[in-house]
Amino acid sequence: MTERLVVIGGDAAGMSAASQARRRRDDLEIVAFEKGPWTSYAACGIPYFVAGDVEELDRLVARTPQAFRDKQLIDVRTEHEVTAIDTGAGQVEVHDHAHGRTFTLGYDQLLVATGGRPVRPDLPGIDLDFVHGVQTLADGQAIHAYAEHGNSEHVVVVGGGYIGLEMAEAFIRWGADVTLLEAAPEVMGTLDPDMGALVRAALERHEVEVRLDTPVSGFEPGRVLTDDGVIEADLVVLGMGVAPNAGLAAAAGIPTGAKGAIVVNRRQQTPVPGVWAAGDCAESHHRVTGDKVHIALGTVANKQGRVAGINLGGGYATFPGVVGTAVTKLCATEVGRTGLSEREATAAGFEYAVVRIEATTRAHYFPGAKPVTVKMLAERGTGRVLGAQIVGEEGAAKRIDIVATAVTAGMTVEDVLNLDLGYSPPFSPVWDPVLVAARQLLPLV
Amino acid sequence: MTERLVVIGGDAAGMSAASQARRRRDDLEIVAFEKGPWTSYAACGIPYFVAGDVEELDRLVARTPQAFRDKQLIDVRTEHEVTAIDTGAGQVEVHDHAHGRTFTLGYDQLLVATGGRPVRPDLPGIDLDFVHGVQTLADGQAIHAYAEHGNSEHVVVVGGGYIGLEMAEAFIRWGADVTLLEAAPEVMGTLDPDMGALVRAALERHEVEVRLDTPVSGFEPGRVLTDDGVIEADLVVLGMGVAPNAGLAAAAGIPTGAKGAIVVNRRQQTPVPGVWAAGDCAESHHRVTGDKVHIALGTVANKQGRVAGINLGGGYATFPGVVGTAVTKLCATEVGRTGLSEREATAAGFEYAVVRIEATTRAHYFPGAKPVTVKMLAERGTGRVLGAQIVGEEGAAKRIDIVATAVTAGMTVEDVLNLDLGYSPPFSPVWDPVLVAARQLLPLV
Repeated sequence: MTERLVVIGGDAAGMSAASQARRRRDDLEIVAFEKGPWTSYAACGIPYFVAGDVEELDRLVARTPQAFRDKQLIDVRTEHEVTAIDTGAGQVEVHDHAHGRTFTLGYDQLLVATGGRPVRPDLPGIDLDFVHGVQTLADGQAIHAYAEHGNSEHVVVVGGGYIGLEMAEAFIRWGADVTLLEAAPEVMGTLDPDMGALVRAALERHEVEVRLDTPVSGFEPGRVLTDDGVIEADLVVLGMGVAPNAGLAAAAGIPTGAKGAIVVNRRQQTPVPGVWAAGDCAESHHRVTGDKVHIALGTVANKQGRVAGINLGGGYATFPGVVGTAVTKLCATEVGRTGLSEREATAAGFEYAVVRIEATTRAHYFPGAKPVTVKMLAERGTGRVLGAQIVGEEGAAKRIDIVATAVTAGMTVEDVLNLDLGYSPPFSPVWDPVLVAARQLLPLV
Repeated sequence: MTERLVVIGGDAAGMSAASQARRRRDDLEIVAFEKGPWTSYAACGIPYFVAGDVEELDRLVARTPQAFRDKQLIDVRTEHEVTAIDTGAGQVEVHDHAHGRTFTLGYDQLLVATGGRPVRPDLPGIDLDFVHGVQTLADGQAIHAYAEHGNSEHVVVVGGGYIGLEMAEAFIRWGADVTLLEAAPEVMGTLDPDMGALVRAALERHEVEVRLDTPVSGFEPGRVLTDDGVIEADLVVLGMGVAPNAGLAAAAGIPTGAKGAIVVNRRQQTPVPGVWAAGDCAESHHRVTGDKVHIALGTVANKQGRVAGINLGGGYATFPGVVGTAVTKLCATEVGRTGLSEREATAAGFEYAVVRIEATTRAHYFPGAKPVTVKMLAERGTGRVLGAQIVGEEGAAKRIDIVATAVTAGMTVEDVLNLDLGYSPPFSPVWDPVLVAARQLLPLV
């Protein structure tokens, strides 16, 4: 009898896994259920669709359901929502939204790739029409419509993280009057406050009204309520983080851990035999702290999906984990971070030395040399680099990859200082900003 | 009695060392002799001065002789050429060009930082006025004058390496009719020919006439002679590589090795007690092959100078060597390389697997996504990454730093594939081009 793999979720992790499994086993029946109309779409592209950088929403779709069916014989069923998993019987219950029917389907192997969901705290009025999360392409369409129809004079962005920053940029570029509300004392909580302040300064240069220490208390039509007063809004965009969408798995008794994400081993197996998980619904291992963490990022979803698919296809692959790398930008200001911030290093029990240096992205005499600030942390005694944060202009953010690689390798500050990096005046000062940080950090560790 | 450090050469290596030594020992007398009028200048900036990117030659001077004297009490003497070293007596013979006098000065410690010299083969007519090397700021001034005075309609660049490429760009931008002569079968000999061909295609798109397999046989006024005919030239720029300028040291019996560069240990000590060397005149250790190599690059000179200076100042520092990283550009085409090419891997006895992939510098749907080609080599069996080459447009070249770091750490292809690199649509596809190369290389190792 044909063995059947059922995949729940048709985005990055699910479809990467399905593709890898198919590549290795053409005898496998693969059924993928996706509750929405799209597969393999780039949710991270939504802010740039709203901003107008990407003109057609379809451009964000890497591969259509029909392409999966035709080219890879993957039975993708969109508008099909899995409503229950029975791990004992080895079957899923599925609701077909298009035809209003519910059915069950057995599986030999099951991959849970149900993704993440934007955090929507239970505040009065949060379900009002003008309050939008940013997750699906439908969200992107809805938010874009406000801008397109001139109905976004006053935009309130709730949350000063990656999505908040990117949505603020989108509406800055539409000429909206943007207010950003941040419950914490500084924006960009994945950076240390001294680096977050540089990002806030960039927001303020673009005339975003940033209100720190200002949690939202509720919404009324046309207004956002805070302890600090009422703010007029045509549109509210929520950027309050992404939680694992693991309720379905949890209800089926599949164990969950960090922030409610599904527990997996390095092959992406859950503790329940025959059940696998990958992507924004699953945990990751943090390679610096050794802790389990929840990181909702397309790169991680793609890698975990690939690993799950290779294993489901009878191969062997492992996902060694993350070091917490992320990049984003606000207009010309680029932001990168990797490894541990001061707060994270302290929480993990590290004693550390830290520097913050100013440099330029190119040789100081080369046109287009832009300022860049690099902060770097290293463990005292061992000198092991724990993390870095970068805020600067063109050419700044992706330099974080050097540190991400060094952190992964367990390099010391002296190792980093001695790295043989590419140098030419249009690309770098003779001491790359990352090396300048290491050079100044070395005497302190 | 005061101890005296004599430094020969006032550029990157010499002055980095002098500065580091001063920082650690304020009791040391430091005398630095520089035969030219400038100290600490960025020779790598010369092509961009000629192109017009850098308007004032003085901008290439990082620190003037007077600044070294005033701020660091380093007795810099420009237009002073050291003509002999007597390691037995511990003294140098110096010719003061400004005053036409020669004197000797004793040293306790000596640092040889005499730099490199452009290769000038002994061809008929090579000393004609219109044939220029690219090394000192005076060379830059002389070459720039041709462009500025409209005397560069026909420019012949001899050699298709880094300097050749950069000088070709400079004259493309002045609207000159540029011919590039390359003795080898392809340009950019530090890349493999398949990647070099991409650079040649870029030259040809800019209407540079590239003649491969065409060594120069001589020069006559207004003409360059080759076996393949005569080429009209108002100006000839030599980009035939840089040799260590180690004749002075060799004449004093200081041992030389790779390509005639001065032999040093990891602290930058030569085998002669009390004599140190750093920069373009000295050898480096290649961290992949384990061989001694000569790499004439500002980054290496700065690092070696720093190490020598710390040791001369009574501290302890070592230079672990290079992995052969370099970046450059031709107009919009960026080039990066690190580790071993196929030719180098073969010469070192490695059996390797190799891939070449095409990707984009940003998410495929993001405006400004540019094509990029990545070639990657890994040792068979161990999977250790041996090197990579990148040719592409904006955002391509500096990605080589990821591979340089990975090669330094001894990472395998699978290690690289799993790197947690920064991802956001304006900066990268969800699989960074470097990761795409690793993903495709993995099944082959």
